[in-house]
Amino acid sequence: MTTNEKLVSLRRLMKENNIIAYYVNTADPHQSEYIAEHYQTRSWLTGFTGSAGYALVTQEEALLWVDGRYFIQAEKEISGTEFKMMKIGNSDYPTIEQWLIRNLNSNDILAMNGELISESFYLKLERLLKPYGILIKTDYQLVEEIWKNRPEKPNAILFTHELQYTGKTAAEKVNLIREKMIQDKAEAALYAGLNDICWLFNIRGGDIANNPVAISYALITLDKAILYIVQNKVVKQVYEHLLENNITIKEYDIVFSDVANLNVSILVLNKEKINHNLFNKIPQSIKIINKQDYPYLIKACLNDVELKNQRNSYIKDSVALTKFIYYIKQNVDSGILNELNVADTLHDLRKEQDLFLDESFSTIAAYGANGAMMHYSATPESYSKIKAESFLLIDSGGHYLDGTTDITRTISCGELTEEQRTDYTLVLKAHLNLARAIFLSGATGYYLDVLARQPLWQYHMDYKSGTGHGVGYLLGVHEGPQRFNMQYANVPLHEGMVITNEPGVYKENKYGIRLENDYVVVKDKKVDADQFMKLDCLSFVPFDRDAIDISLLEKYELDWLNNYQQAVYAKISPFLNEQEKAWLKEETATL
Amino acid sequence: MTTNEKLVSLRRLMKENNIIAYYVNTADPHQSEYIAEHYQTRSWLTGFTGSAGYALVTQEEALLWVDGRYFIQAEKEISGTEFKMMKIGNSDYPTIEQWLIRNLNSNDILAMNGELISESFYLKLERLLKPYGILIKTDYQLVEEIWKNRPEKPNAILFTHELQYTGKTAAEKVNLIREKMIQDKAEAALYAGLNDICWLFNIRGGDIANNPVAISYALITLDKAILYIVQNKVVKQVYEHLLENNITIKEYDIVFSDVANLNVSILVLNKEKINHNLFNKIPQSIKIINKQDYPYLIKACLNDVELKNQRNSYIKDSVALTKFIYYIKQNVDSGILNELNVADTLHDLRKEQDLFLDESFSTIAAYGANGAMMHYSATPESYSKIKAESFLLIDSGGHYLDGTTDITRTISCGELTEEQRTDYTLVLKAHLNLARAIFLSGATGYYLDVLARQPLWQYHMDYKSGTGHGVGYLLGVHEGPQRFNMQYANVPLHEGMVITNEPGVYKENKYGIRLENDYVVVKDKKVDADQFMKLDCLSFVPFDRDAIDISLLEKYELDWLNNYQQAVYAKISPFLNEQEKAWLKEETATL
Repeated sequence: MTTNEKLVSLRRLMKENNIIAYYVNTADPHQSEYIAEHYQTRSWLTGFTGSAGYALVTQEEALLWVDGRYFIQAEKEISGTEFKMMKIGNSDYPTIEQWLIRNLNSNDILAMNGELISESFYLKLERLLKPYGILIKTDYQLVEEIWKNRPEKPNAILFTHELQYTGKTAAEKVNLIREKMIQDKAEAALYAGLNDICWLFNIRGGDIANNPVAISYALITLDKAILYIVQNKVVKQVYEHLLENNITIKEYDIVFSDVANLNVSILVLNKEKINHNLFNKIPQSIKIINKQDYPYLIKACLNDVELKNQRNSYIKDSVALTKFIYYIKQNVDSGILNELNVADTLHDLRKEQDLFLDESFSTIAAYGANGAMMHYSATPESYSKIKAESFLLIDSGGHYLDGTTDITRTISCGELTEEQRTDYTLVLKAHLNLARAIFLSGATGYYLDVLARQPLWQYHMDYKSGTGHGVGYLLGVHEGPQRFNMQYANVPLHEGMVITNEPGVYKENKYGIRLENDYVVVKDKKVDADQFMKLDCLSFVPFDRDAIDISLLEKYELDWLNNYQQAVYAKISPFLNEQEKAWLKEETATL
Repeated sequence: MTTNEKLVSLRRLMKENNIIAYYVNTADPHQSEYIAEHYQTRSWLTGFTGSAGYALVTQEEALLWVDGRYFIQAEKEISGTEFKMMKIGNSDYPTIEQWLIRNLNSNDILAMNGELISESFYLKLERLLKPYGILIKTDYQLVEEIWKNRPEKPNAILFTHELQYTGKTAAEKVNLIREKMIQDKAEAALYAGLNDICWLFNIRGGDIANNPVAISYALITLDKAILYIVQNKVVKQVYEHLLENNITIKEYDIVFSDVANLNVSILVLNKEKINHNLFNKIPQSIKIINKQDYPYLIKACLNDVELKNQRNSYIKDSVALTKFIYYIKQNVDSGILNELNVADTLHDLRKEQDLFLDESFSTIAAYGANGAMMHYSATPESYSKIKAESFLLIDSGGHYLDGTTDITRTISCGELTEEQRTDYTLVLKAHLNLARAIFLSGATGYYLDVLARQPLWQYHMDYKSGTGHGVGYLLGVHEGPQRFNMQYANVPLHEGMVITNEPGVYKENKYGIRLENDYVVVKDKKVDADQFMKLDCLSFVPFDRDAIDISLLEKYELDWLNNYQQAVYAKISPFLNEQEKAWLKEETATL
């Protein structure tokens, strides 16, 4: 079926149901960022394969909203179809809400699958559209209906995350949640977030590629903790672990009837996470406290055991990356390197490290002009050879039993142009000006984001992505709530949060440069009531000496760079062979 | 009546009405920032005279929440009373909502005067307290009842703001509003913001000290524009002006019955501005679009005529300030200067400037340790003499028919200590790092605020105030929505917005340093879809050469400073006498 044929089928169903506009988002019932193939309705319908975006179809129009990361990719993937790209964050394009208000009339029906939208999204839509009389119907699954050969629901088996890595038992974590519930006078808490549930119960799964999570719900009351999950995922060892921690196991779908029969007076949940259909099951008599899920906030701040492990996993990962850069530098003249085989080499180097499980996301190895596509992915059908010029951008990460990593280096493969060195140095300035930040406790990542962008903005350049995201702990490589981003979120950076710092310059058809280290938020000095915080670096991989133009650095910037390069040598050289060590010594020598 | 006697009376009334907690805020029915004496219930009750803060009284407790600007002042003013200070933004103190949830029980009554709270504040309280069964009653005026000798409502007469200053007639502005209404499909718009109404109708008043506004409401429909105001404020010339522009005049209180009888289907208003009692009058059948008032947003971006005038008023004001600094430098050794007479001198220098009307706020002249109190005010009973050492901090501004200004300089009165020079230089770094910002269109003042704080945070110092606020145009000297602040507000900085930049260092019992220029947001380069913006300086008054330690400045910072000082000389010297000019030449010479 072509995209346009799918649209014909969808529009026929819309007509039969008197639906004027149909909304298709990228989501599973748990509002996961990455989703299993089974839930890829938006990707299937539009042909656009990026990880985010949403479509709206009417009889006349087929619109796809995508964010800056995907402008180039989406344009390619939807070309030749009826879909038109709407650029999110670009004021030449209306937001979907603006579009609906301008184009729909009173009593027109906007429809969607209510299991795939959060209750808060529903409420926001309702608030915006109600004054105009636009009706919202959430009991349709039209794209699912026309999707032949839809992949099955994922069914990976669980494993436990042991105490030596977690620092707290599942029973202890459940009690932490109950303490928070009591503070809020809540008698029950309902969870849909997969990372939250896996963290809470010290379990891991494999239902979503590169995300060791299990599709599930959880309900915590003052005396019960229930995991709703497809039961054949629960192998014996996990079953015993759950039992030991007083966690009841129920079949996945039972959550709907359990919620409908819930007998408490105050329930705490996050309307951003609970889908509209499940929310609708909650008896009207129950009072709802709508707030960020406690596990989401607690797990974002690593405890001492987790942080010690996480630091260790980053050293191992930095060793693999440093060896990889040496390998590229040694072999770039040979003509045998390409985007696919270097990703394999990097995978092999990571596998040599202790406790490695999997990549934390599919490695981005983007050579030359491909680097300008932020989320480029080479395929056996389409990949580039690496030549002795321009940049190779490598964005990759690993899941280890003791942590999850994410790092990007942009490697000069030969002589660079002045423009390339200028841009590399500006990205380095962007990176380090955020990295060296000292900030008052309570500052958000949105508030600090400009420290990275300002050095690039001075040259009228911007990157169409966030500057950084939270990193989970053997969970999502994108895991909030912390982030550095131009989109506001009211999330102060707390002690123990791990966050990336990854500004870039992307020049279409030329090259891309991104420099990413990960940091943990730590306490700095306290002066009177002012607790200052700073970012402590976890990643120790050299910046590319050949790509830096020191005439563009202010004195404090050069000091930062030299200190960092020396720390890389001190921490990583013990794990290298003699040739690698000699190269690293030169690469990190004082500039 | 002492504060404690007032509390006894209030608590007696609370008991009679079964009220467990009574809330007293700082507000008039229009949610004005500065309020007439008549509405100063919080100040009268607590004895704390600062411009912001709110009190909560129970039978056992009397609590006063104040923000960082007022910690020192409030502590002094409430000492010896039952009131306890609660520091806003300090995590050792609960917010008022947290306090209420922790201390009130189900069915307890929290009461307040509903005319003095916004509808959005009411809704927020209701949403937070409802799950706990706490009841909110808004039909009480208990503090007003016990307040003997309460000042009358203000009654200043109106004047018109002429076309040569406004660039648009009132009728044209009303039509602009109607265009926005039609876009939103609204048939009526209700306004309570005094600045908004005065701007919209090109009128000015004098109901609030230093704020040329008139207490009023406005209702705009597609064919009518109504001003609700006490009629004896409308003198003949203003009456004719309103008539000419098709504006109907009705008595102030009539707004309540007009709203109750409003016959439209969609009404647009801002729940942050419309008070709860007035909102309650709106018939249930009317659909409400809740959004920022159009006049509020439109007037924040000066049109070409306004901006040309505003620039001119700043040059005049800068001349007065520069002459003032020269006067201080010449006379500081004489021993005759004090905080009161220098404020008079400054007033006289402003009065010499064309079109000067009034100060835009009461001048802060704070010598030495008094400078550490951000909103210090010298009085005939308590003021300091100025000696030939330390700093004199002068924060002041003027209303001119062609604009409103605000500026702060910290003047070295003699030899400074190394600590003083370091701190002055750090404040200068803070100021200039924000001043030189280039930013993507859409960036908010919250997003950019850290550029000012970061140089101070590197030294573990912070200032307990916003970095900058919007400035009105012959209206409020604090006039939003634009601001530089650590508190988030979703307000992008648009072309034509005027905003202050005023970081500081405040050392209790030692000194205070604040350096404030005002800027207008202008377009910078456009690259593809990226419109970059920058801040164009309006204020041209020299920084204190003797107070700057250039060893603390990076190269780009020194370049900025020298460029600025030279611009000051170029723009201001033509208006100075020979001695002043010679001094300014030296003061601004390249460092």
